[in-house]
Amino acid sequence: MLKERDVQKKGERYLEVDPWRIVEKGFHKEQAIVSESLFSLSNENIGIRGVFEETYTGASLQGAYLNGLYEEYFTDVSGYRGVSNRLCFMVNCPHALRLRILIDGEELDLEVSSIEDFRRELDFRTGLMTRVFVWKLRDGRATRVAFRRTVDMAHRERVHQQVELTPLNWSGTLSIQFLVVDEPIHKSRGKTYWKTESSGGAGYFRWLVSRTTQTRMPLFTGHAVFPEMDTMARPADAEKPWDLAFAVNVREGRPASFHRTWVAYSSRNPKESTQDVESRGTTLLRQTEGGFDAAARRTAQYWDSIWKDIDVVIEGDPVNQQGIRFSMFQLLQCYGGAIPGTNVGAKGLTGEAYNGNAFWDTETYCLPFYLFTNPRAARGLIEYRYATLPQALERAKALDCVGACFPIATLDGTESCTLWQHASLQFQPSTGVVFAIRHYTQVTGDTTLLEEKGLELCLQISRFLASRVQYSQKRGAYGYYGVMGPDEFQMMVNHNAYTNYMGKRSLEYTLEAVARVRGTHPAKVTTLLQRLGIGERELDSWKEIAEQMFIPYSAETKLFEQHMGYFDLPHVDIHDIPETDFPLYHSWSYDRVYRNDMIKQPDVLMFMFLYNGSFSREDKLANYEFYEPRTIHESSLSPSVHSILAIELGRYDEAYSFFKFATRIDLDNYNRNANEGLHTTALAAAWMNIVYGYGGLRSDGDKLLLNPVLPKEWKSLEFGVQVRGSIARVRMTPEKIDIRTVSGPAVQLTIWGADETVGPEGLVLPARVAG
Amino acid sequence: MLKERDVQKKGERYLEVDPWRIVEKGFHKEQAIVSESLFSLSNENIGIRGVFEETYTGASLQGAYLNGLYEEYFTDVSGYRGVSNRLCFMVNCPHALRLRILIDGEELDLEVSSIEDFRRELDFRTGLMTRVFVWKLRDGRATRVAFRRTVDMAHRERVHQQVELTPLNWSGTLSIQFLVVDEPIHKSRGKTYWKTESSGGAGYFRWLVSRTTQTRMPLFTGHAVFPEMDTMARPADAEKPWDLAFAVNVREGRPASFHRTWVAYSSRNPKESTQDVESRGTTLLRQTEGGFDAAARRTAQYWDSIWKDIDVVIEGDPVNQQGIRFSMFQLLQCYGGAIPGTNVGAKGLTGEAYNGNAFWDTETYCLPFYLFTNPRAARGLIEYRYATLPQALERAKALDCVGACFPIATLDGTESCTLWQHASLQFQPSTGVVFAIRHYTQVTGDTTLLEEKGLELCLQISRFLASRVQYSQKRGAYGYYGVMGPDEFQMMVNHNAYTNYMGKRSLEYTLEAVARVRGTHPAKVTTLLQRLGIGERELDSWKEIAEQMFIPYSAETKLFEQHMGYFDLPHVDIHDIPETDFPLYHSWSYDRVYRNDMIKQPDVLMFMFLYNGSFSREDKLANYEFYEPRTIHESSLSPSVHSILAIELGRYDEAYSFFKFATRIDLDNYNRNANEGLHTTALAAAWMNIVYGYGGLRSDGDKLLLNPVLPKEWKSLEFGVQVRGSIARVRMTPEKIDIRTVSGPAVQLTIWGADETVGPEGLVLPARVAG
Repeated sequence: MLKERDVQKKGERYLEVDPWRIVEKGFHKEQAIVSESLFSLSNENIGIRGVFEETYTGASLQGAYLNGLYEEYFTDVSGYRGVSNRLCFMVNCPHALRLRILIDGEELDLEVSSIEDFRRELDFRTGLMTRVFVWKLRDGRATRVAFRRTVDMAHRERVHQQVELTPLNWSGTLSIQFLVVDEPIHKSRGKTYWKTESSGGAGYFRWLVSRTTQTRMPLFTGHAVFPEMDTMARPADAEKPWDLAFAVNVREGRPASFHRTWVAYSSRNPKESTQDVESRGTTLLRQTEGGFDAAARRTAQYWDSIWKDIDVVIEGDPVNQQGIRFSMFQLLQCYGGAIPGTNVGAKGLTGEAYNGNAFWDTETYCLPFYLFTNPRAARGLIEYRYATLPQALERAKALDCVGACFPIATLDGTESCTLWQHASLQFQPSTGVVFAIRHYTQVTGDTTLLEEKGLELCLQISRFLASRVQYSQKRGAYGYYGVMGPDEFQMMVNHNAYTNYMGKRSLEYTLEAVARVRGTHPAKVTTLLQRLGIGERELDSWKEIAEQMFIPYSAETKLFEQHMGYFDLPHVDIHDIPETDFPLYHSWSYDRVYRNDMIKQPDVLMFMFLYNGSFSREDKLANYEFYEPRTIHESSLSPSVHSILAIELGRYDEAYSFFKFATRIDLDNYNRNANEGLHTTALAAAWMNIVYGYGGLRSDGDKLLLNPVLPKEWKSLEFGVQVRGSIARVRMTPEKIDIRTVSGPAVQLTIWGADETVGPEGLVLPARVAG
Repeated sequence: MLKERDVQKKGERYLEVDPWRIVEKGFHKEQAIVSESLFSLSNENIGIRGVFEETYTGASLQGAYLNGLYEEYFTDVSGYRGVSNRLCFMVNCPHALRLRILIDGEELDLEVSSIEDFRRELDFRTGLMTRVFVWKLRDGRATRVAFRRTVDMAHRERVHQQVELTPLNWSGTLSIQFLVVDEPIHKSRGKTYWKTESSGGAGYFRWLVSRTTQTRMPLFTGHAVFPEMDTMARPADAEKPWDLAFAVNVREGRPASFHRTWVAYSSRNPKESTQDVESRGTTLLRQTEGGFDAAARRTAQYWDSIWKDIDVVIEGDPVNQQGIRFSMFQLLQCYGGAIPGTNVGAKGLTGEAYNGNAFWDTETYCLPFYLFTNPRAARGLIEYRYATLPQALERAKALDCVGACFPIATLDGTESCTLWQHASLQFQPSTGVVFAIRHYTQVTGDTTLLEEKGLELCLQISRFLASRVQYSQKRGAYGYYGVMGPDEFQMMVNHNAYTNYMGKRSLEYTLEAVARVRGTHPAKVTTLLQRLGIGERELDSWKEIAEQMFIPYSAETKLFEQHMGYFDLPHVDIHDIPETDFPLYHSWSYDRVYRNDMIKQPDVLMFMFLYNGSFSREDKLANYEFYEPRTIHESSLSPSVHSILAIELGRYDEAYSFFKFATRIDLDNYNRNANEGLHTTALAAAWMNIVYGYGGLRSDGDKLLLNPVLPKEWKSLEFGVQVRGSIARVRMTPEKIDIRTVSGPAVQLTIWGADETVGPEGLVLPARVAG
């Protein structure tokens, strides 16, 4: 069913539509902060919003971040047991991209300066951001200003900047200052968290070492400035020792160009001495060398190698073509498995919202993307959980349970959500980890992760699930009481279908995994069980719980009840809610959100999507038809699940209407909050919507299924998936489906129900077109 | 059923048992802070904990409070709509009881000084606190030190202090300083909230004016020192201008005595200028005059007039005799209707715990005591709600409702509970107000409160109840979703029996009251309804809601289900919980408290007590038997309701075991937290336990019922109740029940089912003895 508000949902499109780039023609000042988000660059280690290099006195959300570098804050919530009062947040870091450009005392500032021919671009093929315009002084003198920026994908501590100034109708002197932002302000908290501890440098190399005030994490911020081409310049005294100032003689028509490399180094280790940080940082800084083009080439090569295999090509729909590439580009910028111990933050490295924390959706929404594009990165996400297992064990204890309970929001593995109603009641992070281990092992065929880390994770999570479950004497069944499923509009309920179902499957998979690894490495399993103190009796008890888990399902209606009592909730017709009431959290009294049958995102459809092969078409249809009209989609993750299931059910128009916003949620700023940063996990959902939706990929069973359907709106769709070391590319047109491997051995796929072996020679099947 | 933990519940009795006093023989240093609570004095306006006058470097919770004088604090809870982030708390005020006493440089300090024959007493008949001991200097010189303290019941801005120093074996000079505590520290928050704005005085009269830092409430603190008897002393320079220091020549065997009056004046109005405060305060200060005995007499007369009518006399049980008088004395000290705009704080004026806020139990637990001992004070409690109606209207709006929603915790009428799970989900404060209006009107026969204020309150509350109720399509009935009843161990439930039942009765009473007042004052009702914009259609809708309110009751089992799904909750045998786990809020993970069938206090039994006449004996028995074993009594209000119902059901042993702790909850420190202040509302419950329990009083119907039963543990029980202007006293012995009026006209009572007219000549009935 189409929702009135979806139909009315209007984007704010101000960028040019282009298949490979985002392009801003003319400076859209009113969108300045949104542009900063969209033009974000990152290499997984360093992230920088698309802020202007030069002074800008207009509205801005300045943001430079290092993955895993955070501050902490203690709330004043009263000290109930298990209620976390420590919130970790990604902190806005010192950086060395800031410039001041002055001509005879008149400073360049796009808020007040007169400019012409503004054009900003970010190219997904190269990772290069450029910005060009003509700056007109009050006296009529015109100067062409061109910036280029790239984050280095080969040297992840480096960010490169180039500034080129060309006097168009004058000659003389201009002043350019290369500054380090030493005490950046964290915008939402209104203060800086940095204190400079030492500084040094000489000539074109300058640096400082600073620390966060609470967590005491050290950071080296250095920069090296390389005057390029015929620029003749020597540094002059600047206000702060780490800044560099140049007075440059320029001649009409001749560009003066500078390349600067910013080096950011942090061990994130508060115990590392400032001296050691400085020593390691200066070594890295001294290894840098001039030549922006060479640096940009390295990164362009990186992106080229990525797109070659996994590019998604949509013919006949330039808007979604741009959208899906933007989505994949931004997702891969923030996480690609290069930096161990990192995860996918809700906003990646693009803003302060959600405090830079990673949430439960990593395993369910992001992992599939990596599983089929970069399995090593997928493995990294699970290894992140293993690395934070000690924190999860502690967390379970704080909840009067045993085993491992993974946090709903986290930076360092500890629970960073200070709202007990989420942190103490939501267990999808833990069941999500088991699902991810199962998913990874099944899709990649790589059993080493399971053997080395996954099984231990599964065992500890199962232990937690068994200690949190309760027995209903009335029903003679187990289940979870006092929980919240992923649907956060139904709080503190009993027998939530998602929690019970995922708990059951998690226990079952753990037992299956024990048996499987026992088959190949019996001693390993024995040692592990002994180390964890898990005996056969405990394993048997999990079996009993799984078997007797209450799943609220009616064979007659085929409906799962989202939780006990859900069907008795007062019905709200979501069409009757005025558009201005959204988002409801802002305009409704807090408690009012929770006492009707409206849901934020679909718990039932979610587990039917995750364990897709375990449910009949009739089940899916009944539950889709029941829950869809009750879903408000106030989570950016909700529409993709609906779209994928709608395609499976042949409801192509509905599917497309849900998909419509998927690839451009930030590009067209549908949720009106792209200024706060990008919806990183929703970008992953956009990919899933195409590949699981129109590609019909299903990866939850023993076989890999493909049921490709081309939407009637498109001329063709092509995508690539990595399958057990091979790359298979699928191309769908109104005439045919063409599947072939482009590298690696032949792969086994089940396409529209038929088991096929697909090799480089390819397989051509009749087309299926949606609608 | 007796609970293991109740049986084990051990008191810490260190005070002497005495029918009219609490007496501490020998200084119990380890109980110093508990004693401060027990020896609290108050005259409803000023409250002072039983802190020592002189320097005391031992553990102490210094506390001087003015009723209604508070500070505010803003928590950092995220800004959800309807979630209050402003907490008001009673603030520790400047006072003028502090002394320093020195002899040749050696200072009196009970933490270190050598003392003998310590005796402290608080007499309920006089309101006088005395403390006497012999102080021995290191060189052997001995001085008898005697303090007396009384808060003035005639001049409520005054507190009187007398200090008498008698050298027993020496003559010479001693130094005594009368200090003002100008910047008292609020202990739990660790800082002072006061800033002195001006000061003045000369000779024996000194003062200062200060303000709270946030709320800017002004306070005049003045004192006048009157040297008594043969003390020859003139003030010397002191450190601060408002302090007074004396060097006193004393002679062996001759007492040197001082009387000091502390005057505290506050309008609680931040807009009042410091000059005006000073002017009003000095006027009051100048009206004081020397003579401690005269001041003490005034207050003794006040108490005498109180006890005459309402004393409870228990023969054969000195422990409960002391307990009930202590309870009534402390309750009447904190509230007796003398200061308009005040309410009964959870701790009265005896400590910082609960922030000095009043809770919902005022109307249900305290009001009955006042209804039958001081109806004007009872009316004052309802008038407090009327005075804060504007805040309640605002609060309802914040919850997306209309009408009036009264706060769960408050000082100034605004919601002061910053935990949304209580403030947004509990509505018993509002239904409690309607219950109180009905109760007051029915018992007193005074219809003016209803006509002038009560009806408007009922209408606004009903409006709120009708706007918060929801319709269950499945049940074809109304009810409350997402609520918490008084039982705070079941959070965010649907169709809570208490909330639904009390909501239904509130709507019904409002409609009944409209009809009744219409009968006598039709124009008044028309005007009121017009002013509030309430038409017949709205009244009809309330009727429909009341008629169709879902009450979860099974005619078969006679059980009310505490909320939908309660019977499915996992059962916890409360006997299995280790004693060390209590209180559960401290030792259990927060969420764990909420997901089983254990309850903190009984919702179902509570409404069966409040609307006692509306339920059959069978209903009461079934629900008592079902809920009692599931009740943890983690509220100090819980046992009395159980005891009263157990007496009604003839379960006398159980009743007495519940009663056992009622009168001495603080005196014997059963809950181990009497140091934080007294359980004021539980003190009211103790009275209710005797008068409603053993007296068998029932006041919820048209007739006033008495079903007196003497517990077999007692020789006799006598109590007094004020009924429509008359005082009736009831005396029960094993032989007979003797009821007579001691003042006023004859009253109508239904005694053991028979309608009787009781006058001064009395009525003698055969005895009923429990057990």
